Amino acid sequence: MINRERFIADVEAVRRRSPLVHNITNYVAMNNSANALLAIGASPVMAHWTDEMADMTAIAGALVINIGTLDTQWIEGMLAAGKAASLRGTPVVLDPVGAGATPQRTATALRIIEECKPTIIRGNGSEIMALVDASVKSKGVDSSASSHDALGAAKSLAQSSGAVVVISGPTDYITDGQRVETITNGNPIMTSVTAMGCTASSMVGAFAAVNADAFEASCHAMAVMGIAGQRAAAYSKGNGSMQVNFLDELYNFSPTEAAQMLSQE
Amino acid sequence: MINRERFIADVEAVRRRSPLVHNITNYVAMNNSANALLAIGASPVMAHWTDEMADMTAIAGALVINIGTLDTQWIEGMLAAGKAASLRGTPVVLDPVGAGATPQRTATALRIIEECKPTIIRGNGSEIMALVDASVKSKGVDSSASSHDALGAAKSLAQSSGAVVVISGPTDYITDGQRVETITNGNPIMTSVTAMGCTASSMVGAFAAVNADAFEASCHAMAVMGIAGQRAAAYSKGNGSMQVNFLDELYNFSPTEAAQMLSQE
Amino acid sequence: MINRERFIADVEAVRRRSPLVHNITNYVAMNNSANALLAIGASPVMAHWTDEMADMTAIAGALVINIGTLDTQWIEGMLAAGKAASLRGTPVVLDPVGAGATPQRTATALRIIEECKPTIIRGNGSEIMALVDASVKSKGVDSSASSHDALGAAKSLAQSSGAVVVISGPTDYITDGQRVETITNGNPIMTSVTAMGCTASSMVGAFAAVNADAFEASCHAMAVMGIAGQRAAAYSKGNGSMQVNFLDELYNFSPTEAAQMLSQE
Repeated sequence: MINRERFIADVEAVRRRSPLVHNITNYVAMNNSANALLAIGASPVMAHWTDEMADMTAIAGALVINIGTLDTQWIEGMLAAGKAASLRGTPVVLDPVGAGATPQRTATALRIIEECKPTIIRGNGSEIMALVDASVKSKGVDSSASSHDALGAAKSLAQSSGAVVVISGPTDYITDGQRVETITNGNPIMTSVTAMGCTASSMVGAFAAVNADAFEASCHAMAVMGIAGQRAAAYSKGNGSMQVNFLDELYNFSPTEAAQMLSQE
Repeated sequence: MINRERFIADVEAVRRRSPLVHNITNYVAMNNSANALLAIGASPVMAHWTDEMADMTAIAGALVINIGTLDTQWIEGMLAAGKAASLRGTPVVLDPVGAGATPQRTATALRIIEECKPTIIRGNGSEIMALVDASVKSKGVDSSASSHDALGAAKSLAQSSGAVVVISGPTDYITDGQRVETITNGNPIMTSVTAMGCTASSMVGAFAAVNADAFEASCHAMAVMGIAGQRAAAYSKGNGSMQVNFLDELYNFSPTEAAQMLSQE
Repeated sequence: MINRERFIADVEAVRRRSPLVHNITNYVAMNNSANALLAIGASPVMAHWTDEMADMTAIAGALVINIGTLDTQWIEGMLAAGKAASLRGTPVVLDPVGAGATPQRTATALRIIEECKPTIIRGNGSEIMALVDASVKSKGVDSSASSHDALGAAKSLAQSSGAVVVISGPTDYITDGQRVETITNGNPIMTSVTAMGCTASSMVGAFAAVNADAFEASCHAMAVMGIAGQRAAAYSKGNGSMQVNFLDELYNFSPTEAAQMLSQE
């Protein structure tokens, strides 16, 4: 179970230290992820130019690689940044958006895992399963598998890659291949807000920047997402207001209140 | 006139079947279009990498090509996807953003029409006129022609291209070259929300994915846009809240209520 | 001090003339900047394709170049557009996002200044200082210097480049190398909304398009930003609602009311 005191301490550390989180993320998610990072107290930078990747990585507290709108040039930037960060020991978060939807996405995600050795991999059930079994197909970028069905794949991926693996869903699963934590906060409307998963990956980056224990950092970040989402959903009328209210909840996030709302299986 | 029962049935079909709508769209519109598709019940994917276009097209129910922020590489991806979709019989929607503003945009739109044979072309008055008469100039991406003035051009374009042509404006016109339907729902504030036209094109894609009659699908999609916009405008204070409220209206869209609000000339 | 009548006249001129503002800006800011320009009455176009830069520049009232998410190809488009605009006498606004964060960014900004002769340069304190003293380091895209500390650098940059230089911060400074105007409107929450600085640069473009006096245009644009931000902050709960309310305030902007709220040192 998540330790409440350590959760509170991590949220406060993000606010106090305002880590620079370097995102190479998709066009859809950039604005949301940047605002979510600002809201929780981190300092986002979006940059993908191969020429500046080593220099940008050198000043970042974490790197988040998201393949949502990939192409040849961006993959080059992702690999340059990922390898540089990995060499420096800077935490690398991979979001394999749409793995399983096309073979090119699956292959790109696997190549990033191989070459950049991510610290944490966060995806939905289908994406995580596709990284372990190439026969799994995703429907676009939305999951067609339950997060629970993907747990076996997540453990296997964690063991083979050495990364902590996070599956988002009605229940979030976080595993290092041995241990498993669950988070059951959140609300179904979150799946109707685009880039919510991508934002979760950036949030994981912020917490990994202040906590060297990647397993714990992942749990804390996903708890923040679920609790802020649950609170925002309570007064949102649709996915438009949900997007706005979610940011406001992050902006006013009280870790002590949140610690009492934390829900786990 | 639009048949109310068939309109209701199409909205319900989008919700029930949640078609995958593949968008190659501009950077400004991506977030809005994705959220609008999610709100109405469709499943959006944004992808432009030439290497994965054939595979992505193979799983999509419709393809939307929007040239708002085009460049050489994106055009390559658009053509690859458009030809692949066309060959498979997957509906292709073209949004010729800024046709008439620069000769390069007009030429690109005409090339996509020639090579990809779009099922539906949706633009504002200036854009549609520029595709028929190269001497028509647009002011950037905003229309300098009334939608009514463009109707002749739209009919002519529909006949020469074989596509259903949709002109957005205070009155929307939908024509297959013979028939013309109008929709007079909507509100002027919609022109102050960026990417509203691009979102309309993505919405047309969602309806084309569930209704093989492209003329009817276009009418239904434009009716959804106009009615949701009209409802949202009633309580929006500016273009900021309008963007949010519009998504909430789509999220809570009641086709039976909407059928009673439908307004046509 | 800013002349109230001339401020009011400029806001009315933007509304009446609706200048086309051509933005080559970053992916994070595009949607916000486009909506802000629409809200104040201007007509935004986002376009970066090298092939159409000369034609797009030819119809624009101002060009805004923002290096937030730069790469090799975009730099090519920026330089093509910037040189074409400069040759035509069209005002060019440069936003050197992240100058000082990586040497590549600093070098790119300096190259644009050298080759495109911007009319106005707008950045935060760190960015402006980095353009004058290569030893200044920024933390990502957020300022680590106070705007006041950067004033000397701003004057020096204005003198060497011939551009009006604007530093955003709790106090905004606008200088042509001799004169200095300040604006103390605004609210700290604006630094938690992503792309607010980028939006300020686009706003400067809109005012430069209607007022040939770049110093005055810059003051008026920054005053609009600060006053709209201050008004929006008064009823915003977090950075999510702030982003929305800021646009609504621009949409309903009353220059006569604003003239009475104007605050200067």
